[in-house]
Amino acid sequence: MIDVYSWATPNGHKIHIMLEETGLAYTAHGVNIGAGDQFKPEFLAISPNNKIPAIVDSDGPKGADGKPFALFESGAILIYLAEKTGKFLPADPAARYSTLQWLMFQMGGLGPMLGQTHHFRNYAPEPIEYAINRYTNETRRLYGVMDTQLGKTQHLAGNDYTIADIAAFPWTRSWQNQGIELDAFPHVKRWHEEIAARPAVVRGVEVLASARAPLMDEKAKEILFGATQYAKH
Amino acid sequence: MIDVYSWATPNGHKIHIMLEETGLAYTAHGVNIGAGDQFKPEFLAISPNNKIPAIVDSDGPKGADGKPFALFESGAILIYLAEKTGKFLPADPAARYSTLQWLMFQMGGLGPMLGQTHHFRNYAPEPIEYAINRYTNETRRLYGVMDTQLGKTQHLAGNDYTIADIAAFPWTRSWQNQGIELDAFPHVKRWHEEIAARPAVVRGVEVLASARAPLMDEKAKEILFGATQYAKH
Repeated sequence: MIDVYSWATPNGHKIHIMLEETGLAYTAHGVNIGAGDQFKPEFLAISPNNKIPAIVDSDGPKGADGKPFALFESGAILIYLAEKTGKFLPADPAARYSTLQWLMFQMGGLGPMLGQTHHFRNYAPEPIEYAINRYTNETRRLYGVMDTQLGKTQHLAGNDYTIADIAAFPWTRSWQNQGIELDAFPHVKRWHEEIAARPAVVRGVEVLASARAPLMDEKAKEILFGATQYAKH
Repeated sequence: MIDVYSWATPNGHKIHIMLEETGLAYTAHGVNIGAGDQFKPEFLAISPNNKIPAIVDSDGPKGADGKPFALFESGAILIYLAEKTGKFLPADPAARYSTLQWLMFQMGGLGPMLGQTHHFRNYAPEPIEYAINRYTNETRRLYGVMDTQLGKTQHLAGNDYTIADIAAFPWTRSWQNQGIELDAFPHVKRWHEEIAARPAVVRGVEVLASARAPLMDEKAKEILFGATQYAKH
């Protein structure tokens, strides 16, 4: 049994979608990051960077400490679940490394930069034009990179649907908050709509969705973006 | 033979160090990102996100298109080189996924966030207090996460020296530009000094170093941070 500690955010959706796609048995535990659950000691014990998602797999490999197998970082969890099930990470070496490179494109570029775009466009206390332009421009550039690639191949890493798509798709769901017109990136739009229609994806994006507060209040903003989090270290 | 297209930056250093550590034969080709080399079509053909580093391995796996094996994204290149040589990515499953999770911590957090810290503290045209505080605080938090971990284990993913350390180390070389006092993070400091003293690391950080201009001029700032790059898409 896999326990997933997570929230209905893009990085959480990745794992919920992967679990639904692979058909693995799992239990989702909400970590309300707007209420500060990510700073609780029991969560830090499995996710020392106090970020969601994290998993504990009671059937996972045993380490030297003999504790149940715990893993954090969505990109590492996706590789783990792909290798556990033999799904969505091709065995052919060239296709496998292509998948890992586009997964890293999401982990190192698309996710972190769109996260900054969300912050400065939607959450920062005051609009800062330089930062909004910096990250909105970078977001458009990244959509352009994906559009060029998806004009050549059906999915990001080639013709197979892989963990690279599962990682990138959730970040493109909130394009309206990113200053993006999806019509300007027709290949991304085609890819986005195909993935959004997959039954496992429809189920995955609903996991923990009802638990997430519809609006972010001032207290949640302080917890997520204010000084409190830095007092912990 | 491996051709590496790169520059003497933290993401470039990762690959230069890994190549030196593994003893693989390679040729380093400078991609002067301050002069705009990353936008040249021949570089885009192997690195469609126009970022360094990228590699071409004439002995790598052949894909469906029959072209020489090319790979971009430093995190994917590290996994590839580790699996090619059997070095710095443990075979034991628990240790292997621990390595991948700390590699992802670097790829998704430490690298992108310290990159923003560098930008707002050192390169942005005007100081923006909110952004400087946001990224400097996040940088300190991330050093704190590493310090806690390195107080428990010799290296990031456990006692072995792995690609997680090779990925994270170059980003901690410029702590003085990040608002960090290394003395405040004694375990990071111990780890940093141990890695910095490795002969392969000493050689790796010198690769292409003399080609990199010592100062960043206004033209380079425009190429790296201005509007020009976004006109390409």
